[in-house]
This record gives sequence, structure tokens and C-alpha cells, in this order.
Amino acid sequence: MEVERAKKDDDLNSTDGGVGVGGGGSAAEEVSVERIFEESADPPPPWQNQLTFRAMIVSFILSILFTFVVMKLNLTTGIIPSLNISAGLLSFFFVKTWTKILNKAGILKQAFTRQENTVIQTCVVASSGIAFSGGFGSYLFGMSEIVAKQSAEANTPLNIKNPHLGWMIGFLFIVSFLGLFSVVPLRKIMIVDFKLTYPSGTATAHLINSFHTPQGAKLAKKQVRALGKFFSFSFVWGFFQWFFTSGDGCGFANFPTFGLEAYENKFYFDFSATYVGVGMICPYLINVSLLVGSILSWGVMWPLIGAQKGKWYSSDLSSTSLHGLQGYKVFIAIAMILGDGLYNFIKVLGRTVVGLYIQFKNRDALPVNDRSSPTTVTISYDDKRRTELFLKDRIPSWIAITGYVVMAIVSIIAVPHIFPQLKWYHILTMYIIAPVLAFCNAYGCGLTDWSLASTYGKLAIFTIGAWAGAANGGVLAGLAACGVMMNIVSTASDLMQDFKTGYMTLASPRSMFLSQAIGTAMGCVISPCVFWLFYKAFPDFGQTGTAYPAPYALVYRNMSILGVEGFSALPQHCLMLCYIFFAAAVFVNGIRDAVGPNWSRFIPLPMAMAIPFYIGGYFTIDMCVGSLILFLWRKLNRPKADAYSSAVASGLICGEGIWTLPSSVLALAGIKPPICMKFLSGATNVKVDSFLNPS
Amino acid sequence: MEVERAKKDDDLNSTDGGVGVGGGGSAAEEVSVERIFEESADPPPPWQNQLTFRAMIVSFILSILFTFVVMKLNLTTGIIPSLNISAGLLSFFFVKTWTKILNKAGILKQAFTRQENTVIQTCVVASSGIAFSGGFGSYLFGMSEIVAKQSAEANTPLNIKNPHLGWMIGFLFIVSFLGLFSVVPLRKIMIVDFKLTYPSGTATAHLINSFHTPQGAKLAKKQVRALGKFFSFSFVWGFFQWFFTSGDGCGFANFPTFGLEAYENKFYFDFSATYVGVGMICPYLINVSLLVGSILSWGVMWPLIGAQKGKWYSSDLSSTSLHGLQGYKVFIAIAMILGDGLYNFIKVLGRTVVGLYIQFKNRDALPVNDRSSPTTVTISYDDKRRTELFLKDRIPSWIAITGYVVMAIVSIIAVPHIFPQLKWYHILTMYIIAPVLAFCNAYGCGLTDWSLASTYGKLAIFTIGAWAGAANGGVLAGLAACGVMMNIVSTASDLMQDFKTGYMTLASPRSMFLSQAIGTAMGCVISPCVFWLFYKAFPDFGQTGTAYPAPYALVYRNMSILGVEGFSALPQHCLMLCYIFFAAAVFVNGIRDAVGPNWSRFIPLPMAMAIPFYIGGYFTIDMCVGSLILFLWRKLNRPKADAYSSAVASGLICGEGIWTLPSSVLALAGIKPPICMKFLSGATNVKVDSFLNPS
Repeated sequence: MEVERAKKDDDLNSTDGGVGVGGGGSAAEEVSVERIFEESADPPPPWQNQLTFRAMIVSFILSILFTFVVMKLNLTTGIIPSLNISAGLLSFFFVKTWTKILNKAGILKQAFTRQENTVIQTCVVASSGIAFSGGFGSYLFGMSEIVAKQSAEANTPLNIKNPHLGWMIGFLFIVSFLGLFSVVPLRKIMIVDFKLTYPSGTATAHLINSFHTPQGAKLAKKQVRALGKFFSFSFVWGFFQWFFTSGDGCGFANFPTFGLEAYENKFYFDFSATYVGVGMICPYLINVSLLVGSILSWGVMWPLIGAQKGKWYSSDLSSTSLHGLQGYKVFIAIAMILGDGLYNFIKVLGRTVVGLYIQFKNRDALPVNDRSSPTTVTISYDDKRRTELFLKDRIPSWIAITGYVVMAIVSIIAVPHIFPQLKWYHILTMYIIAPVLAFCNAYGCGLTDWSLASTYGKLAIFTIGAWAGAANGGVLAGLAACGVMMNIVSTASDLMQDFKTGYMTLASPRSMFLSQAIGTAMGCVISPCVFWLFYKAFPDFGQTGTAYPAPYALVYRNMSILGVEGFSALPQHCLMLCYIFFAAAVFVNGIRDAVGPNWSRFIPLPMAMAIPFYIGGYFTIDMCVGSLILFLWRKLNRPKADAYSSAVASGLICGEGIWTLPSSVLALAGIKPPICMKFLSGATNVKVDSFLNPS
Repeated sequence: MEVERAKKDDDLNSTDGGVGVGGGGSAAEEVSVERIFEESADPPPPWQNQLTFRAMIVSFILSILFTFVVMKLNLTTGIIPSLNISAGLLSFFFVKTWTKILNKAGILKQAFTRQENTVIQTCVVASSGIAFSGGFGSYLFGMSEIVAKQSAEANTPLNIKNPHLGWMIGFLFIVSFLGLFSVVPLRKIMIVDFKLTYPSGTATAHLINSFHTPQGAKLAKKQVRALGKFFSFSFVWGFFQWFFTSGDGCGFANFPTFGLEAYENKFYFDFSATYVGVGMICPYLINVSLLVGSILSWGVMWPLIGAQKGKWYSSDLSSTSLHGLQGYKVFIAIAMILGDGLYNFIKVLGRTVVGLYIQFKNRDALPVNDRSSPTTVTISYDDKRRTELFLKDRIPSWIAITGYVVMAIVSIIAVPHIFPQLKWYHILTMYIIAPVLAFCNAYGCGLTDWSLASTYGKLAIFTIGAWAGAANGGVLAGLAACGVMMNIVSTASDLMQDFKTGYMTLASPRSMFLSQAIGTAMGCVISPCVFWLFYKAFPDFGQTGTAYPAPYALVYRNMSILGVEGFSALPQHCLMLCYIFFAAAVFVNGIRDAVGPNWSRFIPLPMAMAIPFYIGGYFTIDMCVGSLILFLWRKLNRPKADAYSSAVASGLICGEGIWTLPSSVLALAGIKPPICMKFLSGATNVKVDSFLNPS
């Protein structure tokens, strides 16, 4: 995955590379960005002035927007591309418009600075991050009755907790802030001493810096216009589609583009602007891996296994029963995800240990990501200036430690009230280990840009679930533990990414920390509310094969069942297949690392391949269409494609994402779409016609 | 209509204006095209060498292609845009490819000249012209039982003649050549002495001339590529749509784009690439007129009249009965078409008389279309050279006169065998008057670019029909007479247009005449065969509301019934409405002429408005989409739009047109599309769902 991420960030860099602020990795080679800013702009305002009222308003609006988008992605496929670019772009646009209007009215008190921009971006990412780490598409919704019924095993009341606004908000509040406190004291070590790259954070910083140069502002304006255009298109398209979706299986989302046979096997282009946009953002290899995975599974494996119906599994099971074909789909996907996750966990952990070892051996002498350079490094002007400002506003360690301990105590007392299955000693154990894992994850993320939060979450599922035991609602305990762990680890690495962005845009660590905290608090309220809207609005919410299947919820629940109850739930030969695919995932990853980046870009990623195993290939078609569009665009006009593709993709993703807001409001109000665009086979159509016109 | 046509030709000129051969109307102002050709190319080959074997092969292939396209247009709406551009472009492409291959093989004997290009273009237009003047969408199919049943009146066996390959080919052969012979002797007077403009012919000549300059050949190549791209797209789109059309009311052609209510009133975008292309070629005013007409009729009038159901007409009539609402639709449309036709007939006739009067008063002194210039005209080099070559190869007048007399005798003997209702004296009378009308039409067309062939045909319907009388199958006699008349008049003006093209490209009149004759012969065989394919392939062919409603067939048959039986067939108040709309059509035309071209471009054309009255507004939506695309394209990049829009539009029209060939073959082979894309209202969908899944 690293290679792809790196590649992706290259693209991001080339985007802002076009506006002259430079892109490369090593700071020493760059033109001095800070000198340019010093000449053209005022020095950064004090940290209190970076956290302006308008910034909070804009953050709040954008948080809602992105929470909808992330929630939609969560609940449809679980693939969430980086939305940093659009968050940065839109925050720039909103505040710029705001200040322009105030300026015209003559009442502008404070100019819009890049520090403020960073603060907004941080707040929005923190807030919409909760939509992911809150587990609405995974562990949290996996506790519900809807998912439990689909998984057949372990659906006793003890292992079920239906979502409710109250406890969800409470739970998120008591677990989400621990991550922040756990790594704050380490920021100097990570950013200044170790000089970790944090590719995403760096890219975002480059972007924000570029916006605040005159040339960059011009390009940003054009990018915003492109984003707006495609946002409107995507929104209108979503609206138009809505009219034709009266009833199940209606509308463009069920268009059998390649015929009914292919549709049955989930191969069709579902006309989703969102996933075309996602495909434009994700690297080619991800999209191709998804396609390969869907062909392998739905094109080859499921038909073959389906042919064993009656032999391998009973033929009178419902199609969603995990003892039938569905079981193979879910468990083989889990096996691949775990194989890939374990491989990368060990790899990143190994690198972390090696990196730390080298760091401490050559303390303060050599940045870890620049091993090839000689031992003496000339510190650039940019680095000097940035470090100076980064160290100016300190956050005392005692605040962090006190915060962590207090939150941990609150959490240890409160969480067992929400989930009686999870005991206080489970939580205490996690909170003792968590800071180490949080540090590991933040460090690994700085090296590889890859947050392993969901892997740590899975680890918690298996360990705590088994510890609690089947008799004591271990399935639910596992899922809840996953939530506790994921929230800490995920927010920790997010915070460190943001610190890196702040470091490079001269934003104060204090304002960054506060903005992250405010964003997290916002997210703890917004995300459950948005989820609640979806949950209440769509009557078949969470069912396989509907508009919002929330695929990972079932996957997470079944992981927990596996952890607690062992392999007894699996249908025949499924365990053997799981072993094979687990091994294959490890093996393919090994090969990828062994052959090096030149060849590994032709080897699909097991993690990506596993996603369509369970939900089908339709969204991979969308994403490949996105890749194709990007590919052709680049062929025709490479600079334009590089400058605008992210904006266009963001527009496509956000437009349809935001359409889910009015669409769920319409659903809540009981307004049904007027038309059903139905696809019938020729024979069925004859029957229907004679039914409708009996004459 | 003149203004629009003129405007359209301006566009055509601006297309080839881009390649430096000049566009304006008056020859004296131009750069000397012929000098350029004399310097860069060989002199034109003798006439026998202009009519090459390869030219005939290419003509034959293109004739089939364009016959399919024209037939499809005929049978869907009856709106046929000028396909001269695409015929010229494709003939250039085919022969160029042919000669290139032969040249590479070293066996090329004769280079590709613009004369040969003109010959192919002439042959193709003549051949595909038969698909229109053969009346497969109007009088000829109007004789059939299918149409007779829909019109309710006069469907006795005496007034019905079902289409059959044998008599259709025979009939066309004996009536189509008379037009050629009738005007051949007048070519010198029309082209050289009167210097009539023939805008379409002139535009085609400019186009062909431009192709044969090096710069023009380059542009033509690019245009061919654009045409090919959109041809493929349109073809593939037609193919893709096919899969979803299993059954009536299925597929994209029935997409209720603006809701089911609007769909019931025939307002929807039916995703037809053909009519989007047609909309791009037709002037804005035509498209807007169509839209205004469809809103006026289906949006206002039919709902209002429909509300009188049970009062104005019996409420237990079938929806296709002409005694009900359908009657108002058909007869009001006929009234407007006749009003507009009559107005323009008188106007063009008046101009013809005035023009001729001036011509003969100032014999040989002053070209009629250049009245503003002084009495002495300096004849340009181009004109001198063209006239010289035009007069070199003579066609003796005795051949023309003998040909006309012989064909007339054959026809007088043979036609009554095909249509016993039409007596020999009817035909003789027509053949005595026809040359005068043919001359009038050719002259009027030269002045205004508007062929009144169908108006002369309607004249024949009413006069001969009434003469034959209701008791003697007057309805069928009228339709047959229409065929005889239309074929003569239409081919006469086509021939003269082609002579103009030939004059300007130095093609010999002999080769032009022969090529036109060969093309006509091809058309007499190809058109009936193509029609036969449609007729046999589609089981609900010719029915209102299906894919091929052949709307004008019913209109023509009802005109004939009106002419023979008077107004007795009309439902209540319909006659009054017809009078009003007839008068309105005349009035609007009068206003258009009175206010001058500056204002008339905002006044819709009654003829165009009448077309959607009967078939509905769906294709007008397509055409307005075409207009919109062209408009936006011009806004974005005017030169590119001007250079490529015709090619793109032709590609769109031809691709889907050609798709009808495989689609009808599939239908003949009994292969049904696999899927029905159906549009159901929410309530119906619930019913259908419970019908399909009774559990």
C-alpha cells in the first residue's frame, strides 16, 4: 500500500508544484517558501488569533458537509479516499469569500492567513474523521440487530446493542479525546527531531501554502470553480436519479449495463458520480486491484462455490445466511483483510523499531527519512523558521498527562455503563497499552503515511473478545473494545499529521491542538446525528444488496464472532479457503516488497482485492471509469489534468454525498420518488405487460 | 423559411471559409478558385473519366447508408435535414482511401479529382432522395391497410394498396426519370444566363472545392475523423439502447425525463443521437418553432380539447380514432401545413414570375440575384472558365424531349395497371402540366433554396382525387397522383442543384446527368428494399406511438380523404379550428415577410410548428438539445464549432441511422432484446413487485 500512497502524494505534490511553491520531499532542496512569505505577507498572528470565530463557523459547515460525504462512503462500500484537498480548497474558498465581503463592507478586522486556513482544515478533518473512526460503518453498527440477524450466529440480546443517539454521542465523547492527549508531548520528537515526512500532512501544507501566494490564489479560484461545477453536476445528477428510484431495484443504481446475467453477479456500472470521483483520486493500482478482486470473486469463485450448493452447504438456506454462499464471501474477505493487515502491521512495526533504534543511536544528528545524506545536515532557513515558531507556543506535558488520566478514569467508569459486556479491567488494560500503540501508529504513519488504526481495532476485537468470553457477550465486548482502541489510535495519528501541516504553515501547535479538539467535539455530535438521519430515513438500511449495505458492519461483527466462538460457524471447506487466502495475502504482499516499486505497481493489493469480495464489483466499475477518465485526461492535457483532477473528483464525490442530505430528509418526510425505472428480462416483461393490461 | 435557409448556408460557407477558398455569394468578389486549381492540379478529365467504376461502387455503398438514414428519419418524424455535407465528406474519404491504397500498391491509374467527387455526391443525393420522394413515409405508405385502419374513413379495399416490393420498384422506375428529362434542356438558362444561386448546390461545391486544396484536404481529414468518432459513438449508443428495448414502452426511447405526466403528453428526452444531430444541423429557429408548436399543442390545446371529451366527441372512441382527439391533432396539423404551403407556393410562384419577367426584359444583361449591382457586369475568370466547360459537353435537346415522351407513354400505360383507380387521362394531364411545374420548382429553388415538391404533391392529391371521385377510389388515386407529381418535381430541382454544383467544380453536365440517372435508378431499387426491411422487421410498424410511426403517412391519407370526401369526416368544431389555424399560418408567414429578416428570426415558422402537433414533442427536445450543444460550443470555441459541427452532427445522425440496419436484421431473425427498461409509477411498481414476488 505504501507505494500507492507515495505515488498518490506525488500526484498531490505535482498539483501544487504547478503554482511554484515547490513540491519535493527533502526540505533542504526547496526554494525557501518562508522567505517568500516573509517578503509578501505579515508575520503569523498569535495563536489566539488563528482560532477565529469565522474559522469555527466555516469549520462547522464544512464538517457537516464532509460528515455526510464520509458517512455515505462508509455505508455504501467503506472505501474513503483522502478528502484533505477538498477540505483545504473549500475552507480557503469560504473564508476568502467571507473576508472579501467584509472587506468590501469596510468592516474586515483581520486578514485571512494560511494559519487560519490550516486551523479550519485541521478542524474539518478531525470532525469528519470521527465519521470513520466512530465505526458507523463498522464496529458500532455491527452491534445492531439488523447486522446480527444477517450473521445468524451469536444474535442473543446479550450480543446486540441497537444504535441510539444518546449512547453513541456519549461513547464517542469519552473515548475520542484520549488519542489527542496521548501523543501531544511527543510532537517535538516526531516533527522536529525525527523529521518524519507525514506525506499527507506535507501535501496539505504545500497546498495551503500555495493558496496564499498570489499565483496560487488564482489557481485555487479556478480549482474552486471546477469543484463547484462538478459539485453541482453531481448533485443534480443525484437529484435526477432520485426520481426513478421508487422501490427496490429501481433506478440507475441498478442499471444492468452489461446485461442481466452480469447484473446478477454484481457487475454493472451504477452511474454513481461519487465513485467515479473516488476512482479519480485513488491510484490506478487500487482501482485495478478492486477490479481484479471482483472478477476473481464474483466472476470465478462464487459461481464455482455456488455450483457446490447442496453439497458444501444446504440448498435451502436464505441467500443472506452466513452458513451458505454468503459465508464464503464474508469469511474469505476477512481472511484476506487480516492477512494483509497482519503483514503490514509487522512490517510497519519492524520499521518503527528499526527507525527508532537508528534515531536513538544518532540522536539529533540525522533525520530518519534522509539516510542517504551525510551525517552533517545544513538546516535550511525554512526549517529554522518553522522550528522556531513550532517551539514557541508550548503545550505543557502535565496538561497532556492530566488530560489523559482524567479522560481514562471517566472512560473506565462510564463505558461499562454503556456496554456492560465490557468490564472496567478490559478498558484499563487497553488504556495502559494504548499510548504505546498510539505512538507506534503515529510514528509509522509519519514514515509510510499509512494509519493502521483499523488493524489495531481488529487486534482489540480478537483479544478482548476472547478475554470476555462467549458466555459474557464477548462479541459485543470485542466490538466495543475495537471502538475504544480505534478512536485513540486514529486520532493520535491524525493529530500528528496536522502538527506537521501546522509546522509547515507556521500555525501554532496550541491553535492546532485546540482546533483538533474542537473538531473532535464537533464530530462526536455531528457524526452520530448524520448516522441517525440515514438510519431513520431509509427503511432497508444496512441490508445486503440495498443502497446502504454498510458492508464492513457485517465483516466486523463476524470477526468478533470468529474471535469469540472460533471457526465453528464456518461452512464446509470455508476454513481451508480462508487459510489459503490469508496465506495468499501475506505472500502477495511479500512479493510486492521483494520485487521493489518498479514491479510492484503491476501486482494487485490483497486488501483492495478483498473489498469487492463481499459487496460485489459494481463500484469497482465506477472507480475504473474514474481511472479511465483521469488517464485519458492526462493523455490529452497532462498539466490541466494534474491541476484540476483533484478538484473535479472532489466535486463529484461531494455533490452526490450532499444530495444524501435532502434525499434522507425526503425519505423521512415520507415523500417517495414518483417513478420506478425497472429492468426486467424479456420474458418477465411479457408477463408484467399482460398483468398490467389484461385485455 | 428563406431566412433560415440562408442563415444555414451562411454557416456552411463559414465552414469552408475556414480553409481559404472563400465563401461569399457573388462570384465577382471571390478569390479566383479556378486559377488556384489550374496552378496546382491537372485540368478536369473528360466526362467519361469522371464517371469511374470506383465512383459508382462508392456511390452504391453510400447510397445504401444514406437511404437507411433518410428512411429512418422519414418513418420516425419526417424531418430530414440536408445530408449533402456528410455525403460529400464521406465520398471524399472513401475514394481518398481507395486511391491511397492503390497508390501504395503502385497500381493507381487515375488520381481522385473534384469532378469525381461531385459525381459521387450527385449520385448519392439522387439515390437517397428517392427515399424521400418515393413517399415511403407519406403517400406510398399512406395507401396501406395499416394506415387506412387508423384513419377510420374510406378504408374500403378500393382505397387500399398494401406495399409490395414488386410494384413499388416498378412504379418508382416509371415515374422518377421524367423529372430529369423535363429540365435538362433548361440548364444553360438557369445556371449560366439567369445565374441562379442554388444555395445548397453552391455550398456543396464550395465544400468539394475546399477538399481538393491541400489545406482543405487536411481539414477534411480531421472532419472525417470527427464524423467517424461520433458515428461510432452514435452507432454504439444505438446498439446499447437496443438491449433495453424488449417490449413496448421499454428503453431509453421512452425515458420520462421530465416525469410521467410530461411523458404522457409526449414531453421527454428520448436520448436519440440522431435527432440531437438533426438539431445541430437545423437552424435555431426551426428547433424553437418545433418546441413552441409542441408546447402549444400538447401543453395547451390537446389538454383543453381533451377536457371536452364526451361533449365535442364521443368518449368511447379508441384513442387512435380520427373522430376523437386524434382527429383534431391530425387535421389541425394538416390545416397549418396547407396554410403555410399555400402561402409559400404563391410567394415563390410570384417571385418566379417577377424574376422571369425581369430576366426576359433585360436578357443577358443582369444576373437576377445581383440586382443591386450596375447594369454592366464584369465576368470573373472563374465564371468564364466554368461557363466554358459547362457548355462544352452538350446534352442534345432531342434526347431530353424523346426521353420525356417515351417515359411518359410507358408511364401512362403502366401506372393504371398498378393503380387501377388512376386513369390514363389523369396521368396524361399531369404529364402535360408537370414540365411547367418542374421548371417553376427548379427556378424557385434556385432563388430561395426551397423545394416545394411536397406542396405540388398535395396539389395533385386534391385535384386528381376530387376528379377521380369518392366512388372510384379517389383516395388512392389522389395518393398515387401525388407520387407521380412529387417525383417529377423533386428530381427536377435536385438535378438543377447538382448542375450548379457541377458548374462550380468543373464537372461535365453529361457526367452529372448520367450520375443523377444512375443514382435515381439505384434509389428506385435500394429505397423500396430498405423500406421493405423495416416493414417486415418491425411487427408494429406504422402504428402511432411506436418506434416507427411514419407520421406523414396518416397525414397524407387524410388529406386525400379530405379532398375526396370533404369535411364530413371531421369531429365537432374541428373544421372551425382548422380554418383558424390555416389562417394563422398564412398570417404568421405574412408577418414574417413584412417585418424583415431582423425581426422574423424571432417569429416561429408555422410549418415547423405543425410537425409535433401530431407526433408529440419528444424529438423537439432532442433537437433543442442539439441546438443547445451547438450554441454552447460556439460560445466556447466558435471557429472549431463552425469547422466541425456539421461533421459531428452528420456522425450522430448516420451512426444511429445505420444501426437500424443490424437492428432490423435482428428483428427479422427473431432475436429479441434481452432486457426491458421499464418506467412505472410508484403505485404501479408496488403492484408489479407484489405480482412478481408473491411471498
